[in-house]
Amino acid sequence: MTDLYPSRNGASAALSERRDPTLHGASRGALSIEERARYQRDGFLFFPELLAKGEVATLLKELDALACDPAILASELAVREPKTDTVRSVFAVHRASPAVARLARHPKLLKVVQELLGGAVYVHQSRVNYKSGFDGEGFDWHSDFETWHVEDGMPRMRALSLSLSLTDNNPLNGPLMVIPGSHKHFLSTVGITPPEHYKESLRRQEIGVPTHDQLRFLVERGGIQAPVGAAGSALLFECNVMHGSTGNITPWPRTNVFLVWNSVDNALQEPYAGLPPRPEHIASRDFTPLRPLS
Amino acid sequence: MTDLYPSRNGASAALSERRDPTLHGASRGALSIEERARYQRDGFLFFPELLAKGEVATLLKELDALACDPAILASELAVREPKTDTVRSVFAVHRASPAVARLARHPKLLKVVQELLGGAVYVHQSRVNYKSGFDGEGFDWHSDFETWHVEDGMPRMRALSLSLSLTDNNPLNGPLMVIPGSHKHFLSTVGITPPEHYKESLRRQEIGVPTHDQLRFLVERGGIQAPVGAAGSALLFECNVMHGSTGNITPWPRTNVFLVWNSVDNALQEPYAGLPPRPEHIASRDFTPLRPLS
Repeated sequence: MTDLYPSRNGASAALSERRDPTLHGASRGALSIEERARYQRDGFLFFPELLAKGEVATLLKELDALACDPAILASELAVREPKTDTVRSVFAVHRASPAVARLARHPKLLKVVQELLGGAVYVHQSRVNYKSGFDGEGFDWHSDFETWHVEDGMPRMRALSLSLSLTDNNPLNGPLMVIPGSHKHFLSTVGITPPEHYKESLRRQEIGVPTHDQLRFLVERGGIQAPVGAAGSALLFECNVMHGSTGNITPWPRTNVFLVWNSVDNALQEPYAGLPPRPEHIASRDFTPLRPLS
Repeated sequence: MTDLYPSRNGASAALSERRDPTLHGASRGALSIEERARYQRDGFLFFPELLAKGEVATLLKELDALACDPAILASELAVREPKTDTVRSVFAVHRASPAVARLARHPKLLKVVQELLGGAVYVHQSRVNYKSGFDGEGFDWHSDFETWHVEDGMPRMRALSLSLSLTDNNPLNGPLMVIPGSHKHFLSTVGITPPEHYKESLRRQEIGVPTHDQLRFLVERGGIQAPVGAAGSALLFECNVMHGSTGNITPWPRTNVFLVWNSVDNALQEPYAGLPPRPEHIASRDFTPLRPLS
């Protein structure tokens, strides 16, 4: 299969145009014309307080319980902070938490996702990022698609992510930052992916990282935005949007649940890095289409 | 001499009331009644675009030149980032840069400082913090006074600092965060100061750091603010205000010049840690009163 988005193949850093549409389907009434245009231009949409307080409380309760569950903590599902033993992320939470499973099939949300991706979708990945107060470290700039392509074998840009705040986010507690319009360019990165790269990269990524020149190119065109809001606010962003965040030294945790939908027509192939695929809890190979909750 | 503010003496972390006034002098017309009340309550004042663009450009030019000066780079004046060779700070810039020397004697600024500190003042410390784009690291929460007291022998809380932005600051490029009202409490920290502590602490401070409980106490009462503005904006803050900042992953450098005035009636004694004083470029012992530029 032709590799439309070569990266980490020993060549130098490069920048090419996106080869896929951003909007994969016609309007189905889930989004306004203005919202569709904004998503196409910026690569993301922000919905302040999309979920009600009660829904957020249920999610937070289930996800906080996971962070204390000895079986989870002893498993590969839990990832620690680079410098401390604090839990940084837990993966595959749509399997462990009924509330996240429901979120993935939330009728209103699923309708939006299906409209943007043009048809049936499944959950490619889910996780909770706790980013605790005082010592939660940041995430360097990256495009998720670059990793999913190289390490998981996702062929095309036809996936999107939800970052749902479970705590109040403000500009000071390390919110997600996005570069508007960055999804229109594919950044090939340098280096070669080592085997089992994910074990290190989920704590701190050092391969598959764009260069300063590549980032300057994107920021000069789109700037940087950090959409923030009260708990329950949702950022929906295209799989190739460049994003990152700084650390959190405030006492306020910045907990969010992260959920990725991929088109069933974009199911994973062999990883383009030529390595064995990452485990199921990081990159699901269950391509069963989701049906909306009734 | 009685130690009014014991810290790092082997005792556990404690929190006590400030033993000094915040306003050391009566009004001399430099500040409005409202500004004086705000400084007394919050411990800081923010002046958006205090300096004109031309003044900022001169400062930036002189300070950027210092970061490339081989003599400076080879000296103790230059401090590097914890993980890279990038210059993080240069000290004693009021001696190396005529523009900073003039800033310390800026008539309007000096009048404000003299009103707040109640009389004649001298420069205790000055430095430029470059906080470069992409990899500029943060500064953990700390009160400057705690260090100046323990390591430099500053007896009382009768000093204040200026943080002047030389680049546009925004909430995303790691701005200085302050805890309003925190200057009213003295936080004794744990640990014992090792000899020559400053060589490590200026890159990353690990001793003299408040506990999470102490920080929560302050933030629950005062919250956190990050006053930001265009280049030339100035934050004037009391020496015991708890402050810190996160790293900067944006391409935009966050360069600021930092200048500390101390009352001549609060001149340095022997350090309370019982160690030799820090070098002159970090804690000046030239107590000659400043005269305003004519």
